[in-house]
Amino acid sequence: MVPRYARPAMTAIWEPEARYRIWFEIEAHATEKLGELGVVPPSAAKALWAWWNTNPRIDVAAIDAIEAVTKHDVIAFLTWVAEQVGDEARFMHQGMTSSDVLDTTLAVQLARASDILIEDLDQLLAAIRRRAKEHKYTPTIGRSHGIHAEPVTFGLKLAQAYAEFSRCRERMVAARSEIATCAISGAVGTFANVDPSVEAHVAQKLGLAVEPISTQVIPRDRHAMFFAVLGVIASSVERLAIEVRHLQRTEVLEAEEYFSPGQKGSSAMPHKRNPVLTENLTGLARVVRSAVVPAMENVALWHERDISHSSVERFIGPDATITLDFALARLTGVIDKLLVYPERMRKNLDRMGGLVHSQRVLLALTQAGVSREDAYRLVQRNAMKVWESDGALSLLELLKADPEVTAALSPEDLEAKFDLDYHFAHVDTIFARVFPS
Amino acid sequence: MVPRYARPAMTAIWEPEARYRIWFEIEAHATEKLGELGVVPPSAAKALWAWWNTNPRIDVAAIDAIEAVTKHDVIAFLTWVAEQVGDEARFMHQGMTSSDVLDTTLAVQLARASDILIEDLDQLLAAIRRRAKEHKYTPTIGRSHGIHAEPVTFGLKLAQAYAEFSRCRERMVAARSEIATCAISGAVGTFANVDPSVEAHVAQKLGLAVEPISTQVIPRDRHAMFFAVLGVIASSVERLAIEVRHLQRTEVLEAEEYFSPGQKGSSAMPHKRNPVLTENLTGLARVVRSAVVPAMENVALWHERDISHSSVERFIGPDATITLDFALARLTGVIDKLLVYPERMRKNLDRMGGLVHSQRVLLALTQAGVSREDAYRLVQRNAMKVWESDGALSLLELLKADPEVTAALSPEDLEAKFDLDYHFAHVDTIFARVFPS
Amino acid sequence: MVPRYARPAMTAIWEPEARYRIWFEIEAHATEKLGELGVVPPSAAKALWAWWNTNPRIDVAAIDAIEAVTKHDVIAFLTWVAEQVGDEARFMHQGMTSSDVLDTTLAVQLARASDILIEDLDQLLAAIRRRAKEHKYTPTIGRSHGIHAEPVTFGLKLAQAYAEFSRCRERMVAARSEIATCAISGAVGTFANVDPSVEAHVAQKLGLAVEPISTQVIPRDRHAMFFAVLGVIASSVERLAIEVRHLQRTEVLEAEEYFSPGQKGSSAMPHKRNPVLTENLTGLARVVRSAVVPAMENVALWHERDISHSSVERFIGPDATITLDFALARLTGVIDKLLVYPERMRKNLDRMGGLVHSQRVLLALTQAGVSREDAYRLVQRNAMKVWESDGALSLLELLKADPEVTAALSPEDLEAKFDLDYHFAHVDTIFARVFPS
Amino acid sequence: MVPRYARPAMTAIWEPEARYRIWFEIEAHATEKLGELGVVPPSAAKALWAWWNTNPRIDVAAIDAIEAVTKHDVIAFLTWVAEQVGDEARFMHQGMTSSDVLDTTLAVQLARASDILIEDLDQLLAAIRRRAKEHKYTPTIGRSHGIHAEPVTFGLKLAQAYAEFSRCRERMVAARSEIATCAISGAVGTFANVDPSVEAHVAQKLGLAVEPISTQVIPRDRHAMFFAVLGVIASSVERLAIEVRHLQRTEVLEAEEYFSPGQKGSSAMPHKRNPVLTENLTGLARVVRSAVVPAMENVALWHERDISHSSVERFIGPDATITLDFALARLTGVIDKLLVYPERMRKNLDRMGGLVHSQRVLLALTQAGVSREDAYRLVQRNAMKVWESDGALSLLELLKADPEVTAALSPEDLEAKFDLDYHFAHVDTIFARVFPS
Repeated sequence: MVPRYARPAMTAIWEPEARYRIWFEIEAHATEKLGELGVVPPSAAKALWAWWNTNPRIDVAAIDAIEAVTKHDVIAFLTWVAEQVGDEARFMHQGMTSSDVLDTTLAVQLARASDILIEDLDQLLAAIRRRAKEHKYTPTIGRSHGIHAEPVTFGLKLAQAYAEFSRCRERMVAARSEIATCAISGAVGTFANVDPSVEAHVAQKLGLAVEPISTQVIPRDRHAMFFAVLGVIASSVERLAIEVRHLQRTEVLEAEEYFSPGQKGSSAMPHKRNPVLTENLTGLARVVRSAVVPAMENVALWHERDISHSSVERFIGPDATITLDFALARLTGVIDKLLVYPERMRKNLDRMGGLVHSQRVLLALTQAGVSREDAYRLVQRNAMKVWESDGALSLLELLKADPEVTAALSPEDLEAKFDLDYHFAHVDTIFARVFPS
Repeated sequence: MVPRYARPAMTAIWEPEARYRIWFEIEAHATEKLGELGVVPPSAAKALWAWWNTNPRIDVAAIDAIEAVTKHDVIAFLTWVAEQVGDEARFMHQGMTSSDVLDTTLAVQLARASDILIEDLDQLLAAIRRRAKEHKYTPTIGRSHGIHAEPVTFGLKLAQAYAEFSRCRERMVAARSEIATCAISGAVGTFANVDPSVEAHVAQKLGLAVEPISTQVIPRDRHAMFFAVLGVIASSVERLAIEVRHLQRTEVLEAEEYFSPGQKGSSAMPHKRNPVLTENLTGLARVVRSAVVPAMENVALWHERDISHSSVERFIGPDATITLDFALARLTGVIDKLLVYPERMRKNLDRMGGLVHSQRVLLALTQAGVSREDAYRLVQRNAMKVWESDGALSLLELLKADPEVTAALSPEDLEAKFDLDYHFAHVDTIFARVFPS
Repeated sequence: MVPRYARPAMTAIWEPEARYRIWFEIEAHATEKLGELGVVPPSAAKALWAWWNTNPRIDVAAIDAIEAVTKHDVIAFLTWVAEQVGDEARFMHQGMTSSDVLDTTLAVQLARASDILIEDLDQLLAAIRRRAKEHKYTPTIGRSHGIHAEPVTFGLKLAQAYAEFSRCRERMVAARSEIATCAISGAVGTFANVDPSVEAHVAQKLGLAVEPISTQVIPRDRHAMFFAVLGVIASSVERLAIEVRHLQRTEVLEAEEYFSPGQKGSSAMPHKRNPVLTENLTGLARVVRSAVVPAMENVALWHERDISHSSVERFIGPDATITLDFALARLTGVIDKLLVYPERMRKNLDRMGGLVHSQRVLLALTQAGVSREDAYRLVQRNAMKVWESDGALSLLELLKADPEVTAALSPEDLEAKFDLDYHFAHVDTIFARVFPS
Repeated sequence: MVPRYARPAMTAIWEPEARYRIWFEIEAHATEKLGELGVVPPSAAKALWAWWNTNPRIDVAAIDAIEAVTKHDVIAFLTWVAEQVGDEARFMHQGMTSSDVLDTTLAVQLARASDILIEDLDQLLAAIRRRAKEHKYTPTIGRSHGIHAEPVTFGLKLAQAYAEFSRCRERMVAARSEIATCAISGAVGTFANVDPSVEAHVAQKLGLAVEPISTQVIPRDRHAMFFAVLGVIASSVERLAIEVRHLQRTEVLEAEEYFSPGQKGSSAMPHKRNPVLTENLTGLARVVRSAVVPAMENVALWHERDISHSSVERFIGPDATITLDFALARLTGVIDKLLVYPERMRKNLDRMGGLVHSQRVLLALTQAGVSREDAYRLVQRNAMKVWESDGALSLLELLKADPEVTAALSPEDLEAKFDLDYHFAHVDTIFARVFPS
């Protein structure tokens, strides 16, 4: 975790105290059920909850000190709780194993992280939707291969992003349900020493599903899938970030990241407004994505379990969720406050001398009976002149002066093919698909 | 694609002829709808289908020869079709762009590949289910960290794999629907020159969903998600493969890959039966997984599209699907014919002098009123003697001879704690969760 | 391997016949030495070489047919050779194990592949050097964050690429020596049945170093390092490819990939010249890089060896080397024939109204005694006006009209700060560092 | 960075204060040279060093507070230094750009990290060497595919690791020189406002090489190579860690991680000694390796520079170096204190009834004139009986009783083939290669 790329709500999930709180809740809920089953005295859970209701501080340092001796984190925690609660605490953890606590805790943490990420996506979607509707009919040039193609609207660009992040939201919801399972199945997962009803009880209390079969640990294919989804979302963040970086290029300058008055772009070049937020997002996307492969390498645990996954998850659990949370929030801010320059968009659109309308002419020629190959040749020879003039010549004027062209299409026909609105006839159809009201 | 790791049905999807056949169908269906809309003569589609109904051979070499001149694959194909069909063919591809054809074709190919992979998973699941039920109550030692833990059954091991691959199947179904979309939206995706109803028509004919918004290309977050799912499935393949490799180790030898009579394990050591199939699967899992990162790097196309994704997909499209198909089939064979040695499992289970029952004793002691710390100490001091004897001493006998232990538990109490069946009381519960009949 | 991204010389290295030829040479050289040692009759090697000198065809299909029965590739090959050579062939492979042949063969293949890649890099370096010197003093705008910064020369851009690929060449040479080792150490690498002098003999004949200690296999950290170097080189290919893609953007258009007369850029938009080669290189870089992680996952073989690495290497061995060879050659062609537009570079450079000279003014102000903060403020307030005018205003004129500025710097002082050549004073120094003549 | 996997010396390199100290030194050395060149008053550097010689505390919080306003880290730092030093400080940073400071600082940090990692490798090598020599002739079974193959010594296993980490050390030294370069070249790297002699001076003072050509930033192919090397070393750590995990398996138990008296292996199963350190190392290897791909994705910066690499490096710079440092030290401890059980090694070696000597018999038969195929058949039929007896039968006895075998080899001949020392004849040769005294 790098503090400058972290927000408090997500970071809090991963702090030791939050983890210990979840540990306690799991142990206490389990003890409660064990009490009902008559395995331990019902008074045990009562004692635990009574202490808990005093809203006690979790003394992380004290627990760490015990762990330094026992070299076992859960035993250290249980020992510390027993010191606080007293004799009744010895019934805690009956028939359970450390992994029951650790893995169910990770499930709670990842589920909470998912809730924040889903909320992040909702806010990002709201920002994109607002700006998309604002610019639904703002003309701009569509580009393929970085080369001017045909007109689109700036709203369409954002509608694409909206559709993409809507899919990301669905994936995030699915990823949440992948990892939100509870396992309290004891050593090697046989329930030999802990009744399955304990698992069901804890799961219900924590809002988790029951893990159908665990082998002491929750299977790591679930976590691999979870981090893979974060990697896909990060890649979508990268895509939109790169779009903004392109739009802000000096020669394009169709949009800019918001530039706050006090901000200095460069120590040396005061005129510069650099797309540093979206460049940063490009890097953060790489960071989130870097969790995917190790998460997949974690799947193949040996036999019923080994602990090779644990150190990996201590890194990628916090890093990938905290970084993606930060990135989504930053991207939301970028889109929300993006400076959009419609005049410049129009200026860029027109700078090619009308070449972007060449496909329409091509179609009109074939529809007028010219063969595909001839039509292509006619358009190409005029288009090339415009291209080489760097926009100084006008394709429309050249076509009007080309007798082979005018033999098939009248000047009026040709002019009609250079109408911008023609390209936007289906914008509303697309918006209706993407933004179901 | 490496031929020895490829099966014909999956490979066929990726051959040039299969691709051209899909291209034709897209173009012909589109022309049909364009005919209905009056954009082109209805006779055009009729001519295309009439030729198609002669079941013509696709002359890949001829198309390649045209492409060598035009340097454009779709134009080359259209030119070749026009040579076959005649004049009516000039109405093909009206208002469309190459990506409409290429991306929708990839969708069809990946959907077909998904169907095969889902069928593969079904067969794997059937094999695992059969062997799991066969060994539902075959006792074997559960291992954590590679160290003997507590008894499980071999059926439970397989039930875990069944649950894991059931999740993989669900993910594969979701991955299929991620990529099974059709885009016929023309240059930069505005439908300026092709009515959205053409897209709807082609989608319906090909069994695809309509892509809500494309920008000439289908957005690559879909494909990133698809390949990520293949990567997760491959990781689950790796897990089960590694389990078999461990079981076949000389010192463990609880199961073996089937060994055909003519097979030579080694040129030098005739007694060796090596788990080469599952070692191979371990490697193939790495290969499938290697598609995940480039697929994610493909997401951030520039503006409305660039073609950087294309070369990547020419590799990973075939390689990842063909390899995973092969791996799933190979794993199915391994499980289906796996030689399982219950006697050896029992022998291994017993070799630790009863140490695997220590947790039960520990619990019994605490339930009999001994503190957790004391119980732990009592069990540990006897267990360590057994451990150091390499299984020559018996934990049960030592405990019976330990006065501090017998102060809390009678010999009969102790003996009851060494009963194997105790561990299998919930096997049926777990099976009912995993194998809903 | 995707044929369209493959060149014959590199592909040939990976064909079955080439592999079998290396196998034979290893076996024959080994048999020769075994003959000298008196382990086998000297006539054995003589018979092998006598047959080899007839330049026999390697019947791949026949060997495959034998392997289908034996399920062991090296035994199949030895059997086939014995069929050709006769009785003396039974002395082949004495004391050796399959891995001795397979791993040493891979070393030869990767060394040959390295030689081609080094030659590729030499040709790329030659092309870059030529174009760099051609444009040593061609002014163009330097950009940070995609935003105009200060002037550079196009030659400097290429000199950077030259320096980067020079490092890549050094890395490739080091990578070659990483993998060019010979192991003939017998089962588990103890030389129990084959004298170390056999290894030394074969190594010397094949131009390899002796592997100091093998465990039946050559350790895979060597191969991991090799593929990591290919991944770094691919990333440098990506960098230069992306530079060209940026330069070819419609709004920038300072350079273009060579456009052959017959080439059609798009089926619909004839004016388009798309940077498809460099977009393709961007994708191919991802493909080469995808070999890095599986190669690293291959390192941790179990005990003395397992065969999980083998299937991975069947993919990445050919794919990464063939693809990188193709990519380097393609990039060489792109640079060699790159259309460079100095006028457009100058036009772009001037379009910002002189803002790019602002740093020099800033420095001049501080050197004239203005505080850093004041100087920054003075330059910034004028620069912002120019910026907002989209280049219509001139920074020089505004500064001349700003009394706070002219209090520190005379009009002549200011004009001197807008001299382009000032920026190129050290171009020669840099060239001397990069291109030692 | 995860504190439990971090050691103080490496962590200190990455703390803000350490970074600011390097910043200062770069600025002060540069100002010194600028003073010599007459660009700034010589008194400026004197003032800076005078303050520095008071060993001032770096007030990180104060600098952060300034950055919160300026949103620019280097300006914030310069402002803070100016507050401390006074008027003379305004000459700092003359003609330089932030990247000159940031990138050269990263070079110093990575060079220092390299020095620690090289020292780590030296200590690991020393530990491996000591244990290798201790067990030079300790017999143990060599395993291929996890299956018993032929005898090796435990010293040979360690000698292989020694050779592998020796290569890693060489790679680390090369990686250090890849990144230990200094760039002080000003905006876009032209030296327009800062003389190249400043760079040379700072480089010399900091023990760095001069970067031949920078474009404001040091090219990131250097860093990609650096992190790739860390990934390879991590993979070698994984290999040795997995060897230990295998050796500690219950059924194998030839070695164990040192088990401190106070350590509890499991909350439930007191007899367990789990290889948790090496399992942890397996996970940490995945973490270090996860830096490789983002470091390679960082190479393709746009034009002269963008800042997408920066956020990535804030993660992987500390994480990969700190984690690898920790992992190497942990592995050194594991090897140094590894409990090695020669008796158990011998017991395992003998448990196969002599099958491991079958290759020698095979060779003896062919040398006695039996055809390869017949020899194979003879050995195989006896070996299979031993195999199926689970080591109860002895291969030697069966062979002595097989008339087809005894027709070729006498009982004495056969007995000689079961001599263990035969396999260790070349151990000394191998040791001489690996450990040049």
